[in-house]
Amino acid sequence: MKITVQDLIHHLTAHVELRENTVDQLISGSMEQLVTGVIVTFMPSQHVIEQAIHQGANLIIAHEPPFYNHHSHTEWLTEDPVYQTKRSLIEKAGIAIYRCHDSIHQIQPDGITEGLIQALGWSSYVVQRKPEADIISFDDHMTVQRIAEHIKRTLGVEYVRIAGSLEMTCKRAAVLVGFRGNGNLTIPLLHNETLDLIIAGEGFEWETPEYIRDAVQQGKQKALIMMGHAESEAAGMKLLAARLDQAFPRLPVHFVGEQPVYKVL
Amino acid sequence: MKITVQDLIHHLTAHVELRENTVDQLISGSMEQLVTGVIVTFMPSQHVIEQAIHQGANLIIAHEPPFYNHHSHTEWLTEDPVYQTKRSLIEKAGIAIYRCHDSIHQIQPDGITEGLIQALGWSSYVVQRKPEADIISFDDHMTVQRIAEHIKRTLGVEYVRIAGSLEMTCKRAAVLVGFRGNGNLTIPLLHNETLDLIIAGEGFEWETPEYIRDAVQQGKQKALIMMGHAESEAAGMKLLAARLDQAFPRLPVHFVGEQPVYKVL
Repeated sequence: MKITVQDLIHHLTAHVELRENTVDQLISGSMEQLVTGVIVTFMPSQHVIEQAIHQGANLIIAHEPPFYNHHSHTEWLTEDPVYQTKRSLIEKAGIAIYRCHDSIHQIQPDGITEGLIQALGWSSYVVQRKPEADIISFDDHMTVQRIAEHIKRTLGVEYVRIAGSLEMTCKRAAVLVGFRGNGNLTIPLLHNETLDLIIAGEGFEWETPEYIRDAVQQGKQKALIMMGHAESEAAGMKLLAARLDQAFPRLPVHFVGEQPVYKVL
Repeated sequence: MKITVQDLIHHLTAHVELRENTVDQLISGSMEQLVTGVIVTFMPSQHVIEQAIHQGANLIIAHEPPFYNHHSHTEWLTEDPVYQTKRSLIEKAGIAIYRCHDSIHQIQPDGITEGLIQALGWSSYVVQRKPEADIISFDDHMTVQRIAEHIKRTLGVEYVRIAGSLEMTCKRAAVLVGFRGNGNLTIPLLHNETLDLIIAGEGFEWETPEYIRDAVQQGKQKALIMMGHAESEAAGMKLLAARLDQAFPRLPVHFVGEQPVYKVL
């Protein structure tokens, strides 16, 4: 059976209605292209594209864009040598890149959050699934430090950033993946869901951590673990790879990860 | 001589024309209030407000907003206990908070960038001042690691995040404070100004560091030091405090800093 890029995209979007201004799109390659193999990844970096070529795969399904901006605009990059080299490699190798961002967040439950919760071994702790977050109730009361160390060990994360006290004991937390770490989402959750801990991917430094800092100064028991954007979302793409492998048994489907984008010094 | 909040604001905005939708505004207190003392700070946190009260100062000039969002909206926070406690403290103590963000970035040269460059001891390395960045030419070629350690030591910063090689030797860098660390600013600078290093405050994780990662994978000599938002801007507010102290010799003016908002684990 010949499988095209279009077939894969149909499969990924069958149960969601993408909004008009979705960022999900075919960024390179064509819909009619026959798929030789699929690489699923968080970020379609130069290294991931080289891995796809090495493995003979001509479709990359990526959560994030290849060209350093959320809406995949490229006109501002046409003179840039890093862009030119990457674009040229993608085109010469005939790699189709499909951005799978909104659809995987829209499916029920959110495929990225689900992948993270599974990877953390916390599925049985989930007491509520909201569109923006899973609400977790820890059965024995763990400290922020113990939770942070569990996250690092389980996901192989090199560091996390913490606001609030490491020694604080946590009962209820919200887990928010990707760029859902801003105050407009986290602050109402803390209050409305009576949480003591936010576990998030990325967010503005002047919002959630500053709120936590003030709460602690006021004597309130609140804390934040900021994991990193990729660190919070890669597990969801790994889960997608496993699901695509089942759905397309004749097609080689592999997840390719990346090193952390930052070193801490 | 009686000095009002209005007098201080006149002084801060005398040489700039603020755009219509500026975030600079009096967030609490009144223009007619007589100033008993001035606290200058990066972030008007609960702790900084308590320090102002302790020091008998009733005007806080802050670069960032007190209520966890750039535009200082508060209607979404009216039920929030952390907001309520902070707001109530500000009002009971009669503290005027003036947001000094756009004006200090607009003066020539940018007061925040200038404060950082002075604190780093790099004034003699500046070869060009652009609205968004100072361009630095290092006289002896320093490695990324040596520059990062200089930043940490000079500013008392606990950690920086680095993309690219620690061993790379740097000739030319751009220094971008605050939230100027995104790709739309950094990527054109790297190319147009033939830089090998970006030193920035904060920016999206999927933009500048991913560009640097790709550049390095392509064999290009590029690196990024992400200092943290507060870490890149506090020195500019400290410089403002020194200037206000000179301009208003009869008024007690003090800079109050904060601990880093994140611990790294």
